[in-house]
Amino acid sequence: MSIDAPQSRVLNEALRSKIMSAAEAAALIPSGSHVGMSGFTGSGYPKFVPVELAKRIEEIHNRGEPFKISVWTGASTAPELDGALAKVDAIEMRLPYQSDPNCRKRINEGTMDYIDIHLSHVAQYVWFGFLGKLDVAVIEVAGITEDGHLIPSSSIGNNKTWLDQADKIILEVNSWQSLALDGMHDIYYGTERPPNRKPIPMVAVADRIGEPYFRVDPDRIVAIVETDSSDRCTAFSPPDTNSQLIAGHIIDFLAHEVKAGRLPANLLPLQSGVGNVANAVMAGLEASHFENLTAYTEVLQDAMLSLIKCGKLTMASATAVSLSEEATADFLQNIDFYRERIILRPQEISNHPELIRRLGVIAMNGMIEADIYGNVNSTHIGGTAIMNGIGGSGDFARNAYISMFMTPSTAKNGAISCIVPMVNHVDHTEHDVQVIVTEQGLADLRGLSPKNRAKLVIEKCAHPSFKPALQEYFDRAMHGTTGLHTPHLLDEAFSFLPKWAAAHKAD
Amino acid sequence: MSIDAPQSRVLNEALRSKIMSAAEAAALIPSGSHVGMSGFTGSGYPKFVPVELAKRIEEIHNRGEPFKISVWTGASTAPELDGALAKVDAIEMRLPYQSDPNCRKRINEGTMDYIDIHLSHVAQYVWFGFLGKLDVAVIEVAGITEDGHLIPSSSIGNNKTWLDQADKIILEVNSWQSLALDGMHDIYYGTERPPNRKPIPMVAVADRIGEPYFRVDPDRIVAIVETDSSDRCTAFSPPDTNSQLIAGHIIDFLAHEVKAGRLPANLLPLQSGVGNVANAVMAGLEASHFENLTAYTEVLQDAMLSLIKCGKLTMASATAVSLSEEATADFLQNIDFYRERIILRPQEISNHPELIRRLGVIAMNGMIEADIYGNVNSTHIGGTAIMNGIGGSGDFARNAYISMFMTPSTAKNGAISCIVPMVNHVDHTEHDVQVIVTEQGLADLRGLSPKNRAKLVIEKCAHPSFKPALQEYFDRAMHGTTGLHTPHLLDEAFSFLPKWAAAHKAD
Ligand SMILES: CC(C)(COP(=O)(O)OP(=O)(O)OC[C@H]1O[C@@H](n2cnc3c(N)ncnc32)[C@H](O)[C@@H]1OP(=O)(O)O)[C@@H](O)C(=O)NCCC(=O)NCCS
Ligand SMILES: CC(C)(COP(=O)(O)OP(=O)(O)OC[C@H]1O[C@@H](n2cnc3c(N)ncnc32)[C@H](O)[C@@H]1OP(=O)(O)O)[C@@H](O)C(=O)NCCC(=O)NCCS
Repeated sequence: MSIDAPQSRVLNEALRSKIMSAAEAAALIPSGSHVGMSGFTGSGYPKFVPVELAKRIEEIHNRGEPFKISVWTGASTAPELDGALAKVDAIEMRLPYQSDPNCRKRINEGTMDYIDIHLSHVAQYVWFGFLGKLDVAVIEVAGITEDGHLIPSSSIGNNKTWLDQADKIILEVNSWQSLALDGMHDIYYGTERPPNRKPIPMVAVADRIGEPYFRVDPDRIVAIVETDSSDRCTAFSPPDTNSQLIAGHIIDFLAHEVKAGRLPANLLPLQSGVGNVANAVMAGLEASHFENLTAYTEVLQDAMLSLIKCGKLTMASATAVSLSEEATADFLQNIDFYRERIILRPQEISNHPELIRRLGVIAMNGMIEADIYGNVNSTHIGGTAIMNGIGGSGDFARNAYISMFMTPSTAKNGAISCIVPMVNHVDHTEHDVQVIVTEQGLADLRGLSPKNRAKLVIEKCAHPSFKPALQEYFDRAMHGTTGLHTPHLLDEAFSFLPKWAAAHKAD
Repeated sequence: MSIDAPQSRVLNEALRSKIMSAAEAAALIPSGSHVGMSGFTGSGYPKFVPVELAKRIEEIHNRGEPFKISVWTGASTAPELDGALAKVDAIEMRLPYQSDPNCRKRINEGTMDYIDIHLSHVAQYVWFGFLGKLDVAVIEVAGITEDGHLIPSSSIGNNKTWLDQADKIILEVNSWQSLALDGMHDIYYGTERPPNRKPIPMVAVADRIGEPYFRVDPDRIVAIVETDSSDRCTAFSPPDTNSQLIAGHIIDFLAHEVKAGRLPANLLPLQSGVGNVANAVMAGLEASHFENLTAYTEVLQDAMLSLIKCGKLTMASATAVSLSEEATADFLQNIDFYRERIILRPQEISNHPELIRRLGVIAMNGMIEADIYGNVNSTHIGGTAIMNGIGGSGDFARNAYISMFMTPSTAKNGAISCIVPMVNHVDHTEHDVQVIVTEQGLADLRGLSPKNRAKLVIEKCAHPSFKPALQEYFDRAMHGTTGLHTPHLLDEAFSFLPKWAAAHKAD
């Protein structure tokens, strides 16, 4: 995001001596290390050291020697990090979230271990010592101040924790990142381990409770690499019909809740998950009559930026800015405007149960499938293969004022129903899911028993081509079940719909 | 719990005029009402009005007329409430937790609707208007002060919310409850709806942040019934071998964590679930070397009282005191001692995610079964029939410093394994379960991928008679699965173990 970068962004004299090439820095990472890297949803990840490390590991592997590391990040990264390392089979263990095709392949073929963790839990697990010692941190920053503080780049994620906990620190100082980001960040240093914890002093999205820079112990910095390379900047596809329909149902629902006195006219802080559907909902809000909105979310995507620009969203808190190339250009051009309206925080704060519940966040997350009783699968295909991970969806869903999950009603060109009798992996239980939305409609499950939820989900959310099958399953379960609290035919729960679809196709 | 009760405990002049019989009070509850009753794990529930209401409803039903109500409570109650009303088919809808045999029967035969809700969510759902209007509150108190405040009895639960929200209030003033309870309660009135919420000002178990009495609008009090009747006072069975073994594994684990520097010497506040196993773990702590313990929990059972008495537990916070007859006698006799060491709070505070996470609670809850990947079923038998409900287990498990689930490795005299390939209902996902304990051993799942969890759970927790079957399932899944992240054979996930057990029995 740079324009006129100064010659070096390493303004601290003493630290200049640590500048080296990415290959030299990568050579400082030993096999077996736990490596904490920056990066959250394709922004603010180190762009050179992981690539050089992958090269080095490939050479070592070619000599027949073993070399693997564990990679801990904020969330998903990019081809230069997860992609490069997964390709050369360099990752022993990955956590807490990924969305890279090469990583996914490795995990699902069984050559990479993966732990999928609530994003608000990761930093504290490391403070508590639950994941072992962090050996190396590799963190992208936008610059180093004269007195040795680090100016964060386009995401914060777990960087504060990695810098605090790692034995050795490698910094990538990326002059593509705008120095005008300076002041957008709010790094809270008030966290403690129990029994010394205090309330987190935030009562509104706009509250700044921390510092603009990362603190760092200069003695642990072992390498500084100067880079100039863009974030992933994935383009969003324009909202398709399904996404627009989903957005429409959600906006109608919110308007209805305002009318009923259950939401203020300017709603409550919005959280919006990753991906195209989530982006489309935000785009839908731009066309709505809502005003003076706020957001308390993980990732700021294109449509949310646009909502800020048009004045409908007055304040957004996130841990990462993840934009397309076009939106990035706008962001940089108007960064003084956006800096007054965007706060980037560490992910243990952006996703903190205490704050999500206090602020009363309206959570809207994507899913793979939901079952008729309101259990949600966000992570697994066929119950066995990982897609991405739970990410922050659980932090938000459990603690939200209202928790919604959305998906098109079918996947794979209509071949698969995303509403099923029983999800084959549960990430969000019936206790944490209040609203299910597909392009077909919205099911408001609040205050309903499992059986009444089932009727509503089938009626409102199922695709017409699967509705009869789901109804048949439910009706048969009502007669064939041992318990009528959550009627199921366990023998058929996973096979009923595929068999029905196959038979139907044969017709 | 009374000894020398004064003639009347209704000290407020104006309110005396509202004293009437339980039958008269019960007549004020119309069919179709949402009724919020006091009661949490067999303590502090109204003991006469529900019985009279059940009689009245039975008469009405006998005349062929319909009459049903919805019953909202803190948690489980007793035969005089859930039992009496369920027997006469008087309950349309029950929430958020029950453990009554008659209720359970109705729910599972499909004649009663039930919603099983995280206990920390109930009060706010009512404030938000998500469950509809509360029509009537029926609340047991220990007394009414001269200036019209209510002295809570042996549980708090959702009483503050029911009193605040109901159109009509019926009070049972129970002179069996000791007036010396006065001062043990801490009713926090600082809760608000978003966007007006503030941090909850508690940083230690011992902090008092509220008031000793319930506030009440006297104009909404429509009846006061004077009673003198004991709480349920269920006896605990003395710890059996399995419970003692489970307790031993947990205590070894805690000692190991202290040694590793991951826990302070006096641990962190303990939470202990309901039932005999939970009680046995507390009893095990009494025989251990731990000192200066604290508890931040829902229910204070016998063994915890005993831990306080012997000086090992210095402070306990709960929302209910649920004791056997013997322990009750001790509690009453030494109530001045216990009042300095026990604080009773509303359940939205005892179970608040903000506080559980801040205090760093060590959560120990019972379960029905766990699967090899670390998913836990706390509520369903056979995936369809409800046992009790999730209660507060999710509030604690998700936000705990360490979250443990425990069960004997088999049920029904060894016929059923409580460690299974895939649980048929998920209440706590793999993301919320860190330690699984059976009498066989303890599996510490922190930092392990699903496959490594499976190996450890089979090795440490499975009963020897089911270990080969579980290992066979896992091995076959490793070869027959499409995804090696969470290997499963979906066609056999629920049937593998029962089939194996049947074949094995035939041998
Ligand atoms: C669930 C999630 C994968 C959906 O993402 P999305 O971009 O909205 O959804 P898509 O429709 O593009 O689906 C993603 C893939 O899953 C496939 N899929 C979706 N539903 C499916 C189903 N029921 N069965 C099989 N495959 C399915 C799609 O076909 C697509 O695969 P492809 O890329 O091979 O075509 C995504 O929201 C996610 O990872 N969520 C978990 C983390 C999270 O919620 N983070 C935000 C918290 S703040
Ligand atoms: C899960 C729970 C029912 C276990 O209770 P418990 O008293 O420790 O366990 P028990 O071993 O007595 O089991 C209770 C019943 O379930 C049955 N059971 C247990 N495991 C079983 C299994 N795997 N399959 C079938 N039945 C099973 C037992 O046989 C017993 O039934 P019975 O009374 O007909 O014999 C109880 O802890 C609970 O309700 N938990 C959820 C709420 C909670 O955790 N509250 C505390 C939070 S603060």
